Amino acid sequence: MPTFNSESLEPLFYPTSIALAGITVDNPQHWTRTFLDSLLEFQFEGPLYLVNPKGGEIRGIKVYRRFADIPQDVDYVISTVPAKAAPGLIEECAHKGVKAVHFCTAGFSEIGEEEGARLEAQLADLSRRTGIRIIGPNCMGIYCPGSRMSFNTDFPKESGPVGFISQSGGNTGGLIRRVMSRGVRFSKVISYGNACDLNESDFLEYLASDPETTIIGLYIEGIKDGRRFRQALEKAAREKVIVLLKGGITEGGARAAASHTGSLAGSERIWDSLCKHLGIIQVHSLEEFADLLVTLRFMSDAGGRRVALIGGGGGSSVLIADEFERSGLQVPPITQEMRDRIREFTPIAGNILRNPIDYSQNMTEPEKLLRTIHIISQWEGIDFLILFLDLAWVPLSVMDLVHKIIDGMLAESGAALKPIAIVVLIDISPEQVEKVYPFVQKCSSSELPVYYSFASAANAINLVLSRNEKVLGTLQT
Amino acid sequence: MPTFNSESLEPLFYPTSIALAGITVDNPQHWTRTFLDSLLEFQFEGPLYLVNPKGGEIRGIKVYRRFADIPQDVDYVISTVPAKAAPGLIEECAHKGVKAVHFCTAGFSEIGEEEGARLEAQLADLSRRTGIRIIGPNCMGIYCPGSRMSFNTDFPKESGPVGFISQSGGNTGGLIRRVMSRGVRFSKVISYGNACDLNESDFLEYLASDPETTIIGLYIEGIKDGRRFRQALEKAAREKVIVLLKGGITEGGARAAASHTGSLAGSERIWDSLCKHLGIIQVHSLEEFADLLVTLRFMSDAGGRRVALIGGGGGSSVLIADEFERSGLQVPPITQEMRDRIREFTPIAGNILRNPIDYSQNMTEPEKLLRTIHIISQWEGIDFLILFLDLAWVPLSVMDLVHKIIDGMLAESGAALKPIAIVVLIDISPEQVEKVYPFVQKCSSSELPVYYSFASAANAINLVLSRNEKVLGTLQT
Repeated sequence: MPTFNSESLEPLFYPTSIALAGITVDNPQHWTRTFLDSLLEFQFEGPLYLVNPKGGEIRGIKVYRRFADIPQDVDYVISTVPAKAAPGLIEECAHKGVKAVHFCTAGFSEIGEEEGARLEAQLADLSRRTGIRIIGPNCMGIYCPGSRMSFNTDFPKESGPVGFISQSGGNTGGLIRRVMSRGVRFSKVISYGNACDLNESDFLEYLASDPETTIIGLYIEGIKDGRRFRQALEKAAREKVIVLLKGGITEGGARAAASHTGSLAGSERIWDSLCKHLGIIQVHSLEEFADLLVTLRFMSDAGGRRVALIGGGGGSSVLIADEFERSGLQVPPITQEMRDRIREFTPIAGNILRNPIDYSQNMTEPEKLLRTIHIISQWEGIDFLILFLDLAWVPLSVMDLVHKIIDGMLAESGAALKPIAIVVLIDISPEQVEKVYPFVQKCSSSELPVYYSFASAANAINLVLSRNEKVLGTLQT
Repeated sequence: MPTFNSESLEPLFYPTSIALAGITVDNPQHWTRTFLDSLLEFQFEGPLYLVNPKGGEIRGIKVYRRFADIPQDVDYVISTVPAKAAPGLIEECAHKGVKAVHFCTAGFSEIGEEEGARLEAQLADLSRRTGIRIIGPNCMGIYCPGSRMSFNTDFPKESGPVGFISQSGGNTGGLIRRVMSRGVRFSKVISYGNACDLNESDFLEYLASDPETTIIGLYIEGIKDGRRFRQALEKAAREKVIVLLKGGITEGGARAAASHTGSLAGSERIWDSLCKHLGIIQVHSLEEFADLLVTLRFMSDAGGRRVALIGGGGGSSVLIADEFERSGLQVPPITQEMRDRIREFTPIAGNILRNPIDYSQNMTEPEKLLRTIHIISQWEGIDFLILFLDLAWVPLSVMDLVHKIIDGMLAESGAALKPIAIVVLIDISPEQVEKVYPFVQKCSSSELPVYYSFASAANAINLVLSRNEKVLGTLQT
């Protein structure tokens, strides 16, 4: 019987060798190939063993017909064998010193039929008897760039401070990919599915004490042990920032969750109140989740709610001011003295010099806009700045100017400017995205937060500020 | 003194000749060139006259040094002369039979200084004295594909049933471009700015009686005559579907509106109650506006709130069901009999066969998914279907399958299927957008509504249904 403390999970994220059981030999496009392709792409350093009754060779690596044929001990197993073969695999693993098995395959309790539930109970029982820890079944397992483990070839190879525990494999990839181009990187990510052995509480306890992780994301459909999870959440929330997306909060969503990971979802009210009480940021979609991670990574130093909005477009100025104030942020008018200073080099016709500041007519003169940003940034009346740019259908010549603006901002020492976020409005067409994408990448690689709409920026920044105010308030009392 | 009825506006949208006063001669990149470039791109059929004191030639067209030098009468004038030269231009126009002048230039009442306000009052006075109608100042004027008038080269050349009246030029282009690739086309679009003569009520009355227009969009910062506007809105709402984005509903937004178009914005509460009372759909961003237009164009026949959600991904299934039920739509479970019929050809492991229906494991077999869609579509328990597809980071081979699914759906006669909307989740990177964009275009050109997130689809469909229920309710009582 293994100890169930969080330290015991460390080996799962740093295995010395990995066996892929059930990988297809014939079809390179088959989904069971994704694990091998990813481990090779990430250059996993330990030995890789492949197992399939057909034998043969894949990408120059020998395929063993039986698990028992592997000549060495194996540390970690990724299994894509059919559900009914899963229990037998654990028995074999027990003779090879295996510490953990990740069962990817579906067809267990989530299908809502007796045979699946029986098989899953059998796995849990075998885990307890053999001491082999199980991730899953019905999940994508571990992505840990630090140990070169991944389940998709296109995930970033660099590590970052965000840990993510997700009951859904699809939503795991969905979140990672949504923030990749916006500069967010991960420490450890676990897609854990039906959780017949290791569950959300195990992984949460582990990430709470993981020094590499400062932000924890959670996508949860149902919990296995409410009391333990609440304790784990309380402890984690004291030490890390937590963002939670609860799936299955409606009747339809809960029905989907039951069929997806065999989960009982629990009421929305309970989750709302738990998050509020513990200072956990609750989100309702992957898009919102992505915006929150971007904000926590690159905008967490906005010390208050007062924002200066600077950008291009009169109509945009009106709408962004509405969005920010509707979200509970403040857009204070600039002083007459500052207005006069900016007017010295800025014509008023076609521009708005209040707050928002619409610099439409002078966007072609980046040095003037930079001077304006500098003046506004010195002002004690605001806590942070937003630069908003409508980049739908801009000519390439304008993109050059936009790059100059960012280059100029980045050239100023960080201390000279208040925190700045970028909102770019883009059109989702190939020629437009091709033009704007390098700009987004430049901002992101310079740790500037990038958002794609006024509403998403305002909402995410407000949620982070509200969380910080709550935590600060708790500390003060 | 001209009559101020809406019929008198018809000539503005179908001018027989256009003069461009103030166009730059030297710099082809200058913003004053956009009107000529657009009229040439759209192949405007009447004579085009160019006026600039420098004289010369632009793109093979003679430039007159003075307006008076134009040998013929002129029907319509687009002016980019500086604010202080605007009154003089009207005097000249009065001798040339001009019906209307669109003043693009800024620098009038919106700058909040005496000189600008005085100039604008002078324009209004000259309009009354000469009978020449004025659009603007400080706006982009008219886009009317039917008469080949446009102020941007990239707007669609085909007409459609959506009229749009917008106080902001930037938001005008912003909305048109957001719905272009999603299949929405326009009848008449007016960017009207400071409205010193023709205002929102004139254009609203005109579009309300325009047979080409069935949907009216409004972006308004402030209104000139509240009583008249309310009457115009009431009349228009009886005959057309209206979507309203009110800019300047917060203190910061109202300050921006005052500086943008010299408008006094009015309180949020009044606008909310007016919209509710008249069955007008109120939106709060251009993104939401775009989703509403797509829904009104291609999804207005969803006769009720019961939806079947079919697509790929267990986690996506949970989240889309939550979004739709949170938005007030209903996701009823399918019957056991239907489930059995689908199970005859669909394995249950890795799929969800309830509602939502997650077809993940069989997405590679389009004919099976089509059969499932067909079975669900016959069911009287639902009013419409959503097909949701996570197309972030799909290989091209999968895009081929996705095209086959849509081709199959389109091949069925429309009557065989209930209304269907498509939700595609995409990653905003050049290589991904390039893959997915042809698919979006195929759907849009076949009049299938396309959305880019679960939340935006659920929200827009709910707002249209709520509006229809309200209007139906009013008719029944």
